[in-house]
Amino acid sequence: MSDAFADLDAHVEANAAARLTDFLELLRIPSISALPEHAGDCRLAASWIADRLRSAGLEHVELAETGGSPVVYADWLHARGAPTVLLYAHYDVQPADPLEHWVKPPFDPRVEDGHVYARGAADDKSHIHMLISAAQAWLAVRGRLPINLKFVFEGEEESGSANLDRWLEANQARLGADLAVVSDTGFFEGNLPAITTGLRGMMYAQLDVRGSHEDLHSGGYGGSVRNPATVLAEILAGLHRPDGRVDVPGFYDDVRMPSETERAASARLPFDEGEYMASIGVDALFGEVGYTTLERRGIRPTLDVCGLWGGFQGEGSKTIIPATAHAKISCRLVSDQDPQRVFAQLQDRIKALAPEGVRVTLTFINGGLPSLMPTDHPATKAAARCIEEVFGRAPLYVSEGGSIPVTASFGSILGLPVILLGFMNPDCGAHAPNESLRLDNWEAGLRTTVRYWEALASLPDRTP
Amino acid sequence: MSDAFADLDAHVEANAAARLTDFLELLRIPSISALPEHAGDCRLAASWIADRLRSAGLEHVELAETGGSPVVYADWLHARGAPTVLLYAHYDVQPADPLEHWVKPPFDPRVEDGHVYARGAADDKSHIHMLISAAQAWLAVRGRLPINLKFVFEGEEESGSANLDRWLEANQARLGADLAVVSDTGFFEGNLPAITTGLRGMMYAQLDVRGSHEDLHSGGYGGSVRNPATVLAEILAGLHRPDGRVDVPGFYDDVRMPSETERAASARLPFDEGEYMASIGVDALFGEVGYTTLERRGIRPTLDVCGLWGGFQGEGSKTIIPATAHAKISCRLVSDQDPQRVFAQLQDRIKALAPEGVRVTLTFINGGLPSLMPTDHPATKAAARCIEEVFGRAPLYVSEGGSIPVTASFGSILGLPVILLGFMNPDCGAHAPNESLRLDNWEAGLRTTVRYWEALASLPDRTP
Repeated sequence: MSDAFADLDAHVEANAAARLTDFLELLRIPSISALPEHAGDCRLAASWIADRLRSAGLEHVELAETGGSPVVYADWLHARGAPTVLLYAHYDVQPADPLEHWVKPPFDPRVEDGHVYARGAADDKSHIHMLISAAQAWLAVRGRLPINLKFVFEGEEESGSANLDRWLEANQARLGADLAVVSDTGFFEGNLPAITTGLRGMMYAQLDVRGSHEDLHSGGYGGSVRNPATVLAEILAGLHRPDGRVDVPGFYDDVRMPSETERAASARLPFDEGEYMASIGVDALFGEVGYTTLERRGIRPTLDVCGLWGGFQGEGSKTIIPATAHAKISCRLVSDQDPQRVFAQLQDRIKALAPEGVRVTLTFINGGLPSLMPTDHPATKAAARCIEEVFGRAPLYVSEGGSIPVTASFGSILGLPVILLGFMNPDCGAHAPNESLRLDNWEAGLRTTVRYWEALASLPDRTP
Repeated sequence: MSDAFADLDAHVEANAAARLTDFLELLRIPSISALPEHAGDCRLAASWIADRLRSAGLEHVELAETGGSPVVYADWLHARGAPTVLLYAHYDVQPADPLEHWVKPPFDPRVEDGHVYARGAADDKSHIHMLISAAQAWLAVRGRLPINLKFVFEGEEESGSANLDRWLEANQARLGADLAVVSDTGFFEGNLPAITTGLRGMMYAQLDVRGSHEDLHSGGYGGSVRNPATVLAEILAGLHRPDGRVDVPGFYDDVRMPSETERAASARLPFDEGEYMASIGVDALFGEVGYTTLERRGIRPTLDVCGLWGGFQGEGSKTIIPATAHAKISCRLVSDQDPQRVFAQLQDRIKALAPEGVRVTLTFINGGLPSLMPTDHPATKAAARCIEEVFGRAPLYVSEGGSIPVTASFGSILGLPVILLGFMNPDCGAHAPNESLRLDNWEAGLRTTVRYWEALASLPDRTP
């Protein structure tokens, strides 16, 4: 079967250097959707991508306004009788702080030891660029695509996809397809090829504790007033039990127990806890009692403090009682958990923990539903065959702890089955300083994608 | 008795406008000792003060090197047969953050409604300038001082007086005196004249919790690792009991119960909890079970979180597990509590609370012993008489919750009795944004000081 792609592989190989240079250009655009001051950069990235889609030969290229960063839409619909596939990736990136931990600035990409280091190098510009390159290869070499494609490149994934659902709803007719392929995932520990079949949902909120009008002198007032920083700590401490379970009434009500089959499959994954600990630099793991590490991070819900602040943070000493203290909280959701319901449960719990003498509020920031992908769908099996052909090893099926809210939306709004096909190395450090992409994953991912579209051509049109 | 000071009062009044202009100049120097980038400004403030001391007619003016910000020393020793008094105030100020809460920049003083607003306007540049002005008045009008004076103006009080004890030890001979008068305190609620007879000590430390090498994706890792921000919260929450007592074994061992007399005196102070709450903007008070608000803030020990930080602090969302989380902790100490002993107790407690999977450390930043001043000392009684004469009301005797570590050092190193004589308005907002000084307190404080030196002249030389 390999020979059938010799012309496309040759094109991919011949363009390797130019493709990398072009990719670095995209990585230089700081398209951080969470920070309003980068709204212009998000738009710049969208325009850059639209240009490349046009050059590749795609049609109806458009920056579709959503109220926030635009969706970049493009299509190619001339494969008569072949299925139509909606391709999704996102061009926005996480904030880059703490900046001082980056070896080089996050938007000044560095190529070293077979990796590209930059914010967004893996998550998710690697896939944006890979999908455009695959289309460019097919159209340049064969003058056609094997299937009909609709590209939907989002610019607000890292800030909660606030506008995407509304846009999907408004564009249902135009977005009709047989299948959605979401490219925003990666491989398993040890860089073992993997297909993600489960994603957790998310609920993200901010906790604010407010005391006095202004910071108070900790000598003059200390001992006589509630300290907002202490109250914040006490509330956060009250959200977990010592056994690692989330201590929010109702939190587990909508969580289904994993089946014995699921647990057995998870237990068979080649996972080395020692290597896992070494890779992140900790000497012990911790999580919900009764579950393995893979279950804890993949199929169980969580509550994490993503940040906290209040009062004096400088060198040395400043003797105050802070006027306010704050925390960012993210919950990862599974099964039938709903972000709004979890937010309400957390709000009730925090209300119960809040003492007199301070004002405590919880504000919803964003959320998304969990989703499960079918392992027995022909499009999943086709993806597995292509991965095995290029990477020389059949993929594992894994539940990934992250959240891609749009995955659930493609099902609920557009009625599409969704396949997750992504190639990030598991040590890519998405969301962390010195995020990196393995270039060999990227190149092989491109060749896999080229093959996958051909494989999808032979699927029955209007897959069930 | 008033007539005896008519010439000095007239001089004070005649120079009011020039004195204020000169004071604002001092307030423009951002002498923040806690921040290394302001070391030059501390030195600038010291030089400015030395110039004014020289102009006033004081002698042996010197910037005495201590290893940090210099001590400004000056004296006048020609009052043969009269007592020698060491005068202390500090020219360094607290950091000014959060800057966005200041109506005008903290080092751009604003005069409004009889107040001066600026960082250090009250704490403690008001007293630095007042003491120089009192000497200037005496020397200009009478050509002499009624007593021998030694000025010791420190530049590191707000960062823990790290170098002062060593400097006092090295200069014992030169600093011989009958009495030390420390000017770094203020009046009671309602701006009622007061003399502080008790100060709490302090222990200031930093708590650091470290997990993974870098921030982790809260989806990919959440649920499987200890979250340093959660651990920080759990440790901080573990340092108090629900009844407001500090939950650190041994913490209260060296704390003497207040006597019935002390408690009765405290209960007689004209204190309105409603006004107190309104002045700081809270709707309930809280503190150690079994004590009144005045006792809690004046004569009982405390533990406060002065600041905390870790992970994402921006707008919107960033879905990470922070690599580290941190807190600043200050304990106010009473009776026989010792900063180093309290630090060791806290360290033990934190060690007991720290789980596996993170590295937890506590670092000592600075400390000072608590101190009690005699109410029956002739110099205290003389201060009370002068305050009553100028302010028209006898002072209250109060225990102030703040800490002035040098107060204990003047006793232990130089063997001096110490009187605290200060005039800050109680709502001055020392350490907070928009710190302010009441100008009427400042003027009357100056006239009180002018009288107090004369009153001290009639004390027996070498007071017991």
